Amino acid sequence: MSRFFSEKYKNLVPYVPGEQPQEIKYLKLNTNESPFPPSKGVAEAVAAEAERLQLYSDPDSKELTAKIAEVYGVKPSQVVVTNGSDEVLNFAFMAFADEKRPLAFPNITYGFYTVFADINHIPYTEIPLRCDFTINPEDYTGINKNIVIPNPNAPSGYELPLTDIEKIVASNPDNLVIIDEAYVDFGAESAVPLINKYDNLFVTQTFSKSRSMAGARLGFGIASEELISDINTIRYSTNPYNINRMTAAAGYAALCDNDYYMKNCRIIEENREQAASELKKLGFTVLPSKANFIFAKSERISGEKLYTELKKRGILIRHFDKEIIRDYNRITIGTQAQMEKLVQTVKEILEEQEG
Amino acid sequence: MSRFFSEKYKNLVPYVPGEQPQEIKYLKLNTNESPFPPSKGVAEAVAAEAERLQLYSDPDSKELTAKIAEVYGVKPSQVVVTNGSDEVLNFAFMAFADEKRPLAFPNITYGFYTVFADINHIPYTEIPLRCDFTINPEDYTGINKNIVIPNPNAPSGYELPLTDIEKIVASNPDNLVIIDEAYVDFGAESAVPLINKYDNLFVTQTFSKSRSMAGARLGFGIASEELISDINTIRYSTNPYNINRMTAAAGYAALCDNDYYMKNCRIIEENREQAASELKKLGFTVLPSKANFIFAKSERISGEKLYTELKKRGILIRHFDKEIIRDYNRITIGTQAQMEKLVQTVKEILEEQEG
Repeated sequence: MSRFFSEKYKNLVPYVPGEQPQEIKYLKLNTNESPFPPSKGVAEAVAAEAERLQLYSDPDSKELTAKIAEVYGVKPSQVVVTNGSDEVLNFAFMAFADEKRPLAFPNITYGFYTVFADINHIPYTEIPLRCDFTINPEDYTGINKNIVIPNPNAPSGYELPLTDIEKIVASNPDNLVIIDEAYVDFGAESAVPLINKYDNLFVTQTFSKSRSMAGARLGFGIASEELISDINTIRYSTNPYNINRMTAAAGYAALCDNDYYMKNCRIIEENREQAASELKKLGFTVLPSKANFIFAKSERISGEKLYTELKKRGILIRHFDKEIIRDYNRITIGTQAQMEKLVQTVKEILEEQEG
Repeated sequence: MSRFFSEKYKNLVPYVPGEQPQEIKYLKLNTNESPFPPSKGVAEAVAAEAERLQLYSDPDSKELTAKIAEVYGVKPSQVVVTNGSDEVLNFAFMAFADEKRPLAFPNITYGFYTVFADINHIPYTEIPLRCDFTINPEDYTGINKNIVIPNPNAPSGYELPLTDIEKIVASNPDNLVIIDEAYVDFGAESAVPLINKYDNLFVTQTFSKSRSMAGARLGFGIASEELISDINTIRYSTNPYNINRMTAAAGYAALCDNDYYMKNCRIIEENREQAASELKKLGFTVLPSKANFIFAKSERISGEKLYTELKKRGILIRHFDKEIIRDYNRITIGTQAQMEKLVQTVKEILEEQEG
């Protein structure tokens, strides 16, 4: 830390992303990336933009925003696009929460929420999950706090039914409810259709997982025109050109090829159920997931040990040190062959240490 | 504004970027873009990345950072890359300025500084330029405030000699001095060589202008390891994956083709001197510029009128409403043919309204 660093941030503990080794080839099942490449249309659109990078991108990303609006059945003025969904989440935390409007979110969830809250000096309550890692909607009804709920939640993969989401939104009319739908395309139900019914609902999504674009950085928010306008006030006061030309073109092209991506999501769902079933046969507890990952533990091996042994064998999964979940690992769902490789390797590790 | 918008930001006045019309073809001399396309290596590098967008980018952008370090003669740990230089400026404002460490910058300069200060609730002093629009270095010596100076300054284009920059940095050892070198490659002298001598110096640059990458969004900061580490604390607490794969690859490739870009900068300088000379012949006052734009006014036509008349004829330049500079227009330097077209059109406008 330099002697110039502001006291405001001296105690800040930054987010720690999953490992992104650039050098060695791992089977990466640790950061919920898609195993499928982007569609051909995306590559072509990007190549075309690469020829005109000397020109600024459109700060309103009009074409992309209109296309998202079309696909999701809302107005373009109800959409904002951002540099990954981390950016729209940070903007929403900034715009709508403060010392007078504290936040509440699950105690076991996306690890960035506490960091976004800390950097913006927003007080927050971490509401414990039930013992089975599900969210109890009663804990969020009429609590008079801004609320953030990922649906499905991470790292559990649990979906909260839309009827419960609606109860939470309806019972907190004077507070904002953010539903983080990063993983919604793998079998869960989106809250977007409720946007026009509730002015206190803000939905975020990303192209990173279901549309194979983690490396392009494209997220978006959908909400009432007024909420989106507030996000744009923040965006235009920090980085109006937040979306570069290539990412905007890639996002547009991806939505034109939406069938390809939605088909991939169905394949991921099948591979998920298959992998869960195989791991259960090996004695694992696997939480029911609606995401592109599963959360699993075994009495036969500690979470950390499994992580380490798999890494030695060239497979990366995600282990969290947090006490309540340290027995578990989060495993991204890849292709069928990748999941077979994982299951086979887990089997070998278990046999080796028991034999 | 929604009823949920935080009071912290209710009075925020966002930055207004130059017009970016997407529909109609203008000769765009209004946002300081390069008239030259990116090098072939950039297009190839981008196309290769488009095939693997499903994988996250490297949050440390190690290869790109190392390449920048190599080109600028510093250590990789003294470099941070950002989503345009707006992002590194905002991060630096956040990290190093606060109510106890107010800021000072010129009253006529890049319009985003006041917005960055406002959104971060940083008090600031706008120090008047001399009547000839130059910076008086005495106004910044030993003032016990954090300082931001663009060099060359915008929209004047004036360069502050490096000896003056060094005096300012040396006379404020307990305050941070940010030198915003967005336009430094068009003939001015960079402060980067002073980085290892002064721990209170922070230099920002961008690939937008001199490396034809405005649409790719790539900026960077160079400073002591400690200052860069503080910026990374902020970056990892807001958006660790701030640089997408395509932009990182484009930046790396651009530095491999650096000769192409530096040759383009020399052409821009020639076109700038030529255009300035022609406009002077038409009676314009043109400030001496070391940037890829000139700042010019004429007794024969108001700044606003010239802007409007040029726009009618398909040429966009930048006009600012601010009282002290409203007689002027900022004109981006394009190719020789573009500048001839501009001068010819200005001539016609003057003759038409006088004749």
